[in-house]
Amino acid sequence: MKVALREIETTVARALIRHGAAEWVAAEVASAVAEAEGLGNRICGLYYLESYCQQLRSGRVRGDAEPDVTRPRPGSVVADARFGFAQPAFARALPQAVEAARDCGVASLAVAHAHTCTSLGFFTARIARQGMIALGFTNATPVVAPPGGRTRVIGTNPISFAVPDGQGGVAMLFDQSTTAVALGKVTMAKAAGEAIPEGWAVDAEGRPTADADAALAGSLLSVGGYKGWGFGLMAELLAAGMTGSRAGPDIGPLKAVEGAPHDIGDYYLLIDPALSGAFHDRFSRVAGMVAQDEGARIPGAGRAAADPAELDPAAWAQAVRLADG
Amino acid sequence: MKVALREIETTVARALIRHGAAEWVAAEVASAVAEAEGLGNRICGLYYLESYCQQLRSGRVRGDAEPDVTRPRPGSVVADARFGFAQPAFARALPQAVEAARDCGVASLAVAHAHTCTSLGFFTARIARQGMIALGFTNATPVVAPPGGRTRVIGTNPISFAVPDGQGGVAMLFDQSTTAVALGKVTMAKAAGEAIPEGWAVDAEGRPTADADAALAGSLLSVGGYKGWGFGLMAELLAAGMTGSRAGPDIGPLKAVEGAPHDIGDYYLLIDPALSGAFHDRFSRVAGMVAQDEGARIPGAGRAAADPAELDPAAWAQAVRLADG
Repeated sequence: MKVALREIETTVARALIRHGAAEWVAAEVASAVAEAEGLGNRICGLYYLESYCQQLRSGRVRGDAEPDVTRPRPGSVVADARFGFAQPAFARALPQAVEAARDCGVASLAVAHAHTCTSLGFFTARIARQGMIALGFTNATPVVAPPGGRTRVIGTNPISFAVPDGQGGVAMLFDQSTTAVALGKVTMAKAAGEAIPEGWAVDAEGRPTADADAALAGSLLSVGGYKGWGFGLMAELLAAGMTGSRAGPDIGPLKAVEGAPHDIGDYYLLIDPALSGAFHDRFSRVAGMVAQDEGARIPGAGRAAADPAELDPAAWAQAVRLADG
Repeated sequence: MKVALREIETTVARALIRHGAAEWVAAEVASAVAEAEGLGNRICGLYYLESYCQQLRSGRVRGDAEPDVTRPRPGSVVADARFGFAQPAFARALPQAVEAARDCGVASLAVAHAHTCTSLGFFTARIARQGMIALGFTNATPVVAPPGGRTRVIGTNPISFAVPDGQGGVAMLFDQSTTAVALGKVTMAKAAGEAIPEGWAVDAEGRPTADADAALAGSLLSVGGYKGWGFGLMAELLAAGMTGSRAGPDIGPLKAVEGAPHDIGDYYLLIDPALSGAFHDRFSRVAGMVAQDEGARIPGAGRAAADPAELDPAAWAQAVRLADG
């Protein structure tokens, strides 16, 4: 079924407000949910709404937190979400972070003590639309063991990169986990009774496994072995270390109704392409080469949310119930 | 055979000076070569010395270039290598870049128009030893096709990340290509008459191949498919775009005696961990979890150059010849 983005947004906002979110907080979160659905990124869309509502009620996420935005140094902006959602904290801090990048050439935006940000690309795209190159890092519940190990240390820890097109749009964007696959792929294999390929996961003893059940009791593997492990650790240390939020091993299950706040950090670097007179030229050169190969592409080129969005009818029905009872 | 790092350094410097490098330039490059050998990273060590000497003679690298260091914004330092080596340009700019990171919380160091930097980790380690977290990016001769394509667009484009230990040392460091394997692995398979595993390369038509000859006529593949492709493009755009140096498709073979200067860019981000009171604590938390698994490790932990270094006797004999005729 198809629903207009505007209707998704107002419905989601109504659901969040009904469960205790402040109006402006609900609007920021609802805009992220609607964009995710428009992009077909269901796992970061309506799929999270029920847990948001339940956690607003239980107090696991604070729906009325006023983010605390500071700029401790000229190129460094910190947005303390104070156990509220990531989206409103980011929105409050973005103008200062863009100004800092313009002033200094490069700037960091550390979102601290926040609820899961779901789609990191939502944030890097917003930075790119302001004309800045963006790198983003976050961490998550531990499900990944080190190469050669069996202890779950870090999460699927995504890294995102977005490039402005010089005209208020996004020329390139990736937002990718540092694991071989997302946990959902293993869950789906289990549901389908299928084996999983080598390289996806290990069992609880750290042995390679093709069995989805054993994988779910064990750990995911990093993409490309030690390379993905390095990238995942980089995301971990920037997201947790540079924001003072929880380290991966200490993050609880994201959708549990009760428990301590997520207390997750998101870390962004903003780079002003205007520092180099050549940035857009070099981008065009590379994009032109890629365009020579039919089927090859620049990640995220032409990325645009469909409106109306094609929704999972069950997820939409649930959203309407959460909004209107 | 074992040779003391100090002897490697003075011999390499003598060879470079004999072929036209200024004394201080030779000292900087020689220190990088000796460190690479001490770390067992032969491909970035003496293996490059002959081409350095030949290219000094041919003028493909300028041995007396005076790097031009500027700070166009408070958080942005640019070192124009002016077609000289990367190491002296970096060395001249590092103090200002560290100062910029301390002032602004985060800073960029763009090394422009340089000869190949060989080991990116040599540079990020130096930043970390100054107490700053370092990200490094560079590009190289095109050998990688996009997923689904067959045109060589980008190089093995490495990314490096280094973490200071708070005591003048390096707590973690990775320096990894964004391809499934380095080109050398394919060359070695060819020499041994062995097949190569799926996922390493495609032939000239973009078809997966197990044949090393076909792979060498074709392209390498990115690690983890589109994920490594995204990371490789990120390195490309930061290294070329933010320095105004050549885009990957326009970089010639690195060791050819004659030709245009490499004109390669290296791009570094420096982050002051002191901005967060929690950085070293979160690092310890994660490192402690990793230490639970025998065989698992933090990349680059305990990294130290062996002294004396174990050398390839042929490479050392050649270095001595280049130095002393």
